[in-house]
Amino acid sequence: MGGRTTRRRVLKVTLPGEGQTSEAAARERADLLAAEEPLGIRVDGEALTMTMRTPGDDIELTAGFLVGEAIVTRPEDVKEIKLCDGASCRHERHDDHEIGNIADVTLTASATALASTKRRSFMTTSACGVCGKTSVEDICVLPHAPLATDETRFSAAMLATLPTRLREAQKIFASTGGLHAAGLFTPAGDLLAVREDVGRHNAVDKIVGWALLQDRLPLRGSALLVSGRASFELVQKAVLAGIPLLAAVSAPSSLAAELAEESGLTLVGFLRGGANGASMNVYTGAHRVLV
Amino acid sequence: MGGRTTRRRVLKVTLPGEGQTSEAAARERADLLAAEEPLGIRVDGEALTMTMRTPGDDIELTAGFLVGEAIVTRPEDVKEIKLCDGASCRHERHDDHEIGNIADVTLTASATALASTKRRSFMTTSACGVCGKTSVEDICVLPHAPLATDETRFSAAMLATLPTRLREAQKIFASTGGLHAAGLFTPAGDLLAVREDVGRHNAVDKIVGWALLQDRLPLRGSALLVSGRASFELVQKAVLAGIPLLAAVSAPSSLAAELAEESGLTLVGFLRGGANGASMNVYTGAHRVLV
Repeated sequence: MGGRTTRRRVLKVTLPGEGQTSEAAARERADLLAAEEPLGIRVDGEALTMTMRTPGDDIELTAGFLVGEAIVTRPEDVKEIKLCDGASCRHERHDDHEIGNIADVTLTASATALASTKRRSFMTTSACGVCGKTSVEDICVLPHAPLATDETRFSAAMLATLPTRLREAQKIFASTGGLHAAGLFTPAGDLLAVREDVGRHNAVDKIVGWALLQDRLPLRGSALLVSGRASFELVQKAVLAGIPLLAAVSAPSSLAAELAEESGLTLVGFLRGGANGASMNVYTGAHRVLV
Repeated sequence: MGGRTTRRRVLKVTLPGEGQTSEAAARERADLLAAEEPLGIRVDGEALTMTMRTPGDDIELTAGFLVGEAIVTRPEDVKEIKLCDGASCRHERHDDHEIGNIADVTLTASATALASTKRRSFMTTSACGVCGKTSVEDICVLPHAPLATDETRFSAAMLATLPTRLREAQKIFASTGGLHAAGLFTPAGDLLAVREDVGRHNAVDKIVGWALLQDRLPLRGSALLVSGRASFELVQKAVLAGIPLLAAVSAPSSLAAELAEESGLTLVGFLRGGANGASMNVYTGAHRVLV
């Protein structure tokens, strides 16, 4: 397994604009790419799923994935998560020197039972669990309006500062331009955690897994900001983690807004802020945003 | 099943910048969101997979998905693709009035056999087919350097015009800001096809499916441009469709560049063009790009 970025030789081509006198040029230079590698997740020795992710925080990613699938809700549900590379495994839960592309999970008996059900329904899900179902209630197993009772409020002025705070907190994006980020914030705008990945859903899983392992779930009273768009999947992950506000730098999808509405989640899109002013669209749960 | 966009009420919040005298404002207005709905794909009556997609071009999406999984290579492999909504199905191959969230596919016997193998390996893939495999060759079943013999050349000046042409060809993006696009172009820069989706991989599947149903595969001599980033998955789809050049507006991942290198694909990233000049990074197969 490699690191979070890979160095490659690249041919950088530049062409002059209209009326410019410079010449077209092609120069070789080194470029940093965001690493993408498969991570297989195994529960009690049996394959559960595979995701293409940026290596790093793999134990958190695995834990967060299990929360997002409603297999795990408390840290006690997880006996152990090891990272393996086929030949050997590391047993530490928080491992700075992660070594493999397999996450090997041991759960308690009750969570194992849930994982087995899930493994069967993955075949229907990844296959056809939602075929022919056309409404959110059919697709989604979330309880009704689980977030409705979270009375946290967030000021619009604070929300407007978050995209800059997230970018400042990102370690890799500036150098590769290829990583998504998810950041978890307090209502005062303080950063609780930031994670990056080539996949937005993985970045969110890493945040949620961090919270599970720190015994901070549910994440009531917090706001989650993601780079890019907000899909159905991201809303579902936020709701299962108990997060009352999800903000995205770009647009939400129709199903993201529908599920947010039904779950009592505040969904903010097109969140932009800077010295020239700020703007945002509040799609659902506008009562939590103070203007 | 709904259309490609959904209208929602949204609270648009604007805040003044530093030194500006305007007041913070919150106005209700209508907003268009890109539609996201599940599409289940069934082969010979049995569930194969499910994808979250923007409705529209669903028969092409299904056909392209089957090409990307190497189940189908020629239009004759597909006997029929119907769209169903549970109660009823439509039998037309090219159906402007698509009605369901289930695509029901009938294949020829040889393709059916491949689909069955694939269905089994989905459980390993979507589960753990690539666990512990750390090199591209292990993950990927592509033949060696399948594109090496494509001698098409593309001028950098022509490539620089493609992002603008793609944006002009997009029907929905401007109004929702939430859709990815894929565009297929000739070496002269002429647009052959453009498709949109909340998922970049779906937009590419729609292009490839269009090509299959028009009996245009392999797409030798063409260039594919995608909005956003280029992942391993997109490179694999381009290679299986026989496309010699894949360009992305943003960054590729490490694995995308590795697979492109091994497949003989020309991979261009950060493709930017306009009146003030143009630039692009050529990651692999630079011999096809004429500066």
